[in-house]
Amino acid sequence: MDALLRLLMGPWTTYILWVLRQRGPLRFGALKREVGGISARMLTERLRMLEQAQVIFREHHPSIPPEVTYGLNARGQELGSVLDALDSLARRWAAEDGRTH
Amino acid sequence: MDALLRLLMGPWTTYILWVLRQRGPLRFGALKREVGGISARMLTERLRMLEQAQVIFREHHPSIPPEVTYGLNARGQELGSVLDALDSLARRWAAEDGRTH
Repeated sequence: MDALLRLLMGPWTTYILWVLRQRGPLRFGALKREVGGISARMLTERLRMLEQAQVIFREHHPSIPPEVTYGLNARGQELGSVLDALDSLARRWAAEDGRTH
Repeated sequence: MDALLRLLMGPWTTYILWVLRQRGPLRFGALKREVGGISARMLTERLRMLEQAQVIFREHHPSIPPEVTYGLNARGQELGSVLDALDSLARRWAAEDGRTH
């Protein structure tokens, strides 16, 4: 399976992209809190790979202390429709489950 | 975020579903080999949650030794279009990257 597909389907990727899509650019700490359960090491690795694949951008702000924010690039935005499709399927199934319990 | 969405976006889920979609029903061992890098414990947990969410089925075969296969349920099939969309995006980007290197 090609590297990009492995990245997109790899652990945590869709979750990270879904949070960045819902919340817009975030700092590392805020992103880690939103993606519940991910380790700092895993988040660092995922963000590095997503940046290399040009799915997200990494922006330095020369504030004191300096800040780094992560956000969706054009490719990340393209994934939006896939993330929305996952979102609406999950909502429909939850509604179906709600009716049957 | 609701439980089903967390499941769909959780670690390894899209990768497991993608393999079952490409290969059809598989036994645990074959599935573990195809989803490179996943631990038996993680795969067991993921399959149990996907079965509870009615995204996959688990079938017992009374052979000797007894066999268990996992495959996509109707919901799993519905995810097919999302997995295909991920697949085609990844292929297009890989082609774009191929041209720029």
